[in-house]
Amino acid sequence: MKEKHIAYKRAVNYYETDRMGIVHHSNYIRYFEEARLLMLQELVMDYAQMEKMGIIIPVTFAECQYLLPLRFGDEIIIDTYMTKYDGIKMEVDYRIYRKDSDVLCTTGRTGHCFLDEDLKPIRMKRKFPELYGKLKNLIEHVEKETK
Amino acid sequence: MKEKHIAYKRAVNYYETDRMGIVHHSNYIRYFEEARLLMLQELVMDYAQMEKMGIIIPVTFAECQYLLPLRFGDEIIIDTYMTKYDGIKMEVDYRIYRKDSDVLCTTGRTGHCFLDEDLKPIRMKRKFPELYGKLKNLIEHVEKETK
Amino acid sequence: MKEKHIAYKRAVNYYETDRMGIVHHSNYIRYFEEARLLMLQELVMDYAQMEKMGIIIPVTFAECQYLLPLRFGDEIIIDTYMTKYDGIKMEVDYRIYRKDSDVLCTTGRTGHCFLDEDLKPIRMKRKFPELYGKLKNLIEHVEKETK
Amino acid sequence: MKEKHIAYKRAVNYYETDRMGIVHHSNYIRYFEEARLLMLQELVMDYAQMEKMGIIIPVTFAECQYLLPLRFGDEIIIDTYMTKYDGIKMEVDYRIYRKDSDVLCTTGRTGHCFLDEDLKPIRMKRKFPELYGKLKNLIEHVEKETK
Repeated sequence: MKEKHIAYKRAVNYYETDRMGIVHHSNYIRYFEEARLLMLQELVMDYAQMEKMGIIIPVTFAECQYLLPLRFGDEIIIDTYMTKYDGIKMEVDYRIYRKDSDVLCTTGRTGHCFLDEDLKPIRMKRKFPELYGKLKNLIEHVEKETK
Repeated sequence: MKEKHIAYKRAVNYYETDRMGIVHHSNYIRYFEEARLLMLQELVMDYAQMEKMGIIIPVTFAECQYLLPLRFGDEIIIDTYMTKYDGIKMEVDYRIYRKDSDVLCTTGRTGHCFLDEDLKPIRMKRKFPELYGKLKNLIEHVEKETK
Repeated sequence: MKEKHIAYKRAVNYYETDRMGIVHHSNYIRYFEEARLLMLQELVMDYAQMEKMGIIIPVTFAECQYLLPLRFGDEIIIDTYMTKYDGIKMEVDYRIYRKDSDVLCTTGRTGHCFLDEDLKPIRMKRKFPELYGKLKNLIEHVEKETK
Repeated sequence: MKEKHIAYKRAVNYYETDRMGIVHHSNYIRYFEEARLLMLQELVMDYAQMEKMGIIIPVTFAECQYLLPLRFGDEIIIDTYMTKYDGIKMEVDYRIYRKDSDVLCTTGRTGHCFLDEDLKPIRMKRKFPELYGKLKNLIEHVEKETK
């Protein structure tokens, strides 16, 4: 069976740390974006391509729990799952691990909607049925997996 | 009666926008930090001074709800309140308005703990009673106000 | 005589520091942008307004010399001067001081051109003569001053 | 012969763009840092390891020429060479290309010194002769290559 989530590998950059010596908490929100856009690219469609088709997917909420700090030099893995999708809204969950251990460092979630270029909601099922199907496919897998 | 919260004024910087034409969602977490550190500076103690005393206040969680986008050129006000404080943890709430209207654009909350330089929890009431009192004072006001 | 440069005051934000304990060197380029856009706003025209008129002013080069580090808690002043302007290109110089001393911490320069929305060069003198005059006025002052 | 420079591959992140629709000019300075630290890691020594040994390598100057804009979705290659090294100072040159073409988009240079934890200059040749040799080796190659 085809993989339905991604495990995004990344190193912590020096400029992402702050004077506490750890990754500044705002940067995790950027890590989540990188992971989410990679998930779309690998499993659905390139987001740059979606924008060309007139679809934008802004963030409606973001949350992050900081369990253990990340530092410069850390190699990390961001497990990324779509957890809700109904054709109008979606939610994505993130879990960050250091590559060399199974210890969970960070958890997070972002919420999104689908808008056209006039910032009006798009009914994905009607307007982009193929894309809708691909997105729906991701969430159905997770639903089955967690039963 | 002395004011117990702050209304932090700020302009949106060009480099804080993204290609959607609006402030990138990660930057609100940075706005919250600016507002929180100003609240500490104005009503409690300069955070640089706290760090010199061996107190660090990392973020344990952050959340943000994006109601209306902010754009380059917007002047904003960030209303900032401490909403929980028990000597070990604190929570701070944020509400962002555009200066020229009463429309709420963003809400958010961050959670924090108080650690020493070895990243061990500090019992603020015992170790820094005066500081504890000032912090406690902020939250008591809010509790009374919302009854 | 009306002032022809600006002295922009600003505090260093915590999130702008890195694990060396000082402001990350990339952030000075952002400070320069803040100072430059404030200079335009105060002495010429709001840049958001220029964008609405179809003028964009991208950066063609940037350079920065880091003489003394800036730290969280520092209040700084960014002296900002236009040093070249010929209707097609402009250059802006920056000098950063800590507010409490006369010691120069940072120097820098950025170069710019004036483009329309199709990224074609604009002949400012012909197309926007009033704006051209205001911009030219800034540089003539500096030329006189330094003779 | 062993390779003496690196060609660092990277994708442009969404959050690195600004409302002009292109990568914000400050972010190239961060790209340079990523490339430089990768060059050290691959060809000399991990920078996190150097910091543990008490060596810090701050930036003394940075400059960047923006020839062609980069956009979200672009895959880029950053060619990175050490161009000066005398045991006290070093300079590193950068050239950014889009992966799918030979067109040069950005050039840049950063200058650095080698300091100990008290921010005093380190004489690398005396104090860390092996590291000195590895760094020197990088520059000798370039000198030969460009004759």
